[in-house]
Amino acid sequence: MREYQTRIQRVLDDALNRTDVPERLRESMRDSTLSGGKRFRALLVYAAGLAVDAPLEKLDVVAVALECIHAYSLIHDDLPAMDDDDLRRGQATNHVKFDDATAILAGDGLLTFAFELLNSPESPLSDKECRQITHLLANKAGPIGMVGGQMLDIQATGLDHADKKTSLIELEDIHRRKTGALIKAATLCGAYCSESANESQIQHLDDYSTSIGLAFQVVDDILDIESSTEELGKPSGADLELGKATYPALIGLDESKKMADNLYQEAMVSLASISDNTSPFTERADSSTALLTNLADLVIKRRN
Amino acid sequence: MREYQTRIQRVLDDALNRTDVPERLRESMRDSTLSGGKRFRALLVYAAGLAVDAPLEKLDVVAVALECIHAYSLIHDDLPAMDDDDLRRGQATNHVKFDDATAILAGDGLLTFAFELLNSPESPLSDKECRQITHLLANKAGPIGMVGGQMLDIQATGLDHADKKTSLIELEDIHRRKTGALIKAATLCGAYCSESANESQIQHLDDYSTSIGLAFQVVDDILDIESSTEELGKPSGADLELGKATYPALIGLDESKKMADNLYQEAMVSLASISDNTSPFTERADSSTALLTNLADLVIKRRN
Repeated sequence: MREYQTRIQRVLDDALNRTDVPERLRESMRDSTLSGGKRFRALLVYAAGLAVDAPLEKLDVVAVALECIHAYSLIHDDLPAMDDDDLRRGQATNHVKFDDATAILAGDGLLTFAFELLNSPESPLSDKECRQITHLLANKAGPIGMVGGQMLDIQATGLDHADKKTSLIELEDIHRRKTGALIKAATLCGAYCSESANESQIQHLDDYSTSIGLAFQVVDDILDIESSTEELGKPSGADLELGKATYPALIGLDESKKMADNLYQEAMVSLASISDNTSPFTERADSSTALLTNLADLVIKRRN
Repeated sequence: MREYQTRIQRVLDDALNRTDVPERLRESMRDSTLSGGKRFRALLVYAAGLAVDAPLEKLDVVAVALECIHAYSLIHDDLPAMDDDDLRRGQATNHVKFDDATAILAGDGLLTFAFELLNSPESPLSDKECRQITHLLANKAGPIGMVGGQMLDIQATGLDHADKKTSLIELEDIHRRKTGALIKAATLCGAYCSESANESQIQHLDDYSTSIGLAFQVVDDILDIESSTEELGKPSGADLELGKATYPALIGLDESKKMADNLYQEAMVSLASISDNTSPFTERADSSTALLTNLADLVIKRRN
């Protein structure tokens, strides 16, 4: 995992080093993209791609695009007009370090740059792969996906969640869009970098990403209650304070933990099926299985 | 011109009518995109495309993408954290009608949707065209283009423009990015929809778009002084009040008018060369020449 974390840091740094971008904008874009994070989405790109024998140089481009879109979403979500967060990964958020206007533009710039990079003439992706990946990524990141999820999340904040059954259906819809969609995009876009991936492999990877996507959010909700501000790198208890619908609020803390465990087990079942469909005994297949297992562990066992 | 204005309104309305987008987000995206405007960028797509015999159904998709990106840029530029404008086209701006969070998300949604639509499996563009158009559009709209221009514009606002020579070079750089880049993208993306466009045609269209792109901004600066708030649909004299670098401020009002006229003449020269390279006596060629002439006239003679 460390190997690919180092790799994504290097390719991101290279990609965001363009001197023709106005300096303040470049600094703001680089600051939010290069200052750490678990690189969960980039790692998913590599892990899913390796499972279907995709070339690493194609995965690099897709991993950078995913991390840029993830970074943009955090910058915009943290804005005073949105979630108004001053702290992220233990550091001042983009609009605090720079200002609101720069943060809005850095987000816009990162989102647009992701599509520029994917479709660049220098990108090793084929025209067909460019189209498939650009379409899926835009679909999952856009108004029916991540952007739509953030809209619904804002609208649901502070509402009365007395009708828990309705609230739970709505909560799953929000999270499927807000977090799940980009996790799914990362996994499938990684797989789309292979010319030899078969339908069954894609389906199992899709199932795997559905399970860990939902688990990711359930664990997020649990951590907001159980972790300290120091561990989280952002204020703990924020969901409760904002009156957000969360899994612990709707089904209780114990049930939430059971749910996360079940989703982890589901992910492991999908993973076993992926391995069954991968050419065995190769270094890449081992590497992929190890990465996908590590990522599922990371989702469940993380403290921030 | 009216024919294509009606056409873009219809295809935009169809494209933005997706029921799987959360309602408030959909309304906000539709409101800013469908409520008028000159459709200058969409018309450029059609005009340039017709000049090189591109199929209309391809131009429809590209024109919608351009209008979505233009609408997103206006929504974000108008935000309180940016230019803080309450009025646009005589109507309340998006964040005033909705709120800041919704406006940020509507902009993000429109930008992402443009790339989704272009690369959709249903789009009539070939894979190669998708890639070329997506790359150019993202390049011109992104950090080195439009987003970069807005960053530089904000940084230049309120500065002392005593060194007029330096200021003029900087002003041209800002406008080339902020307005010129998307006007160029509209023209070239329209041309890229044709399989038979030759290099010389592309070059003349490129030159044409450079001239009217710059003219557009010079006229904008003149109108800020000469038009009334009623004519403009937004407060006149705003540039002066904000201490923005403008052509009239740097070279005077008369020189600015001369500059706009010269740029118009340059555009007409490029246009004559485009016509020389177009199969003559066809309905499409006539239509294209008429449209490109009308658009240059529109840039120079508009009152808002």
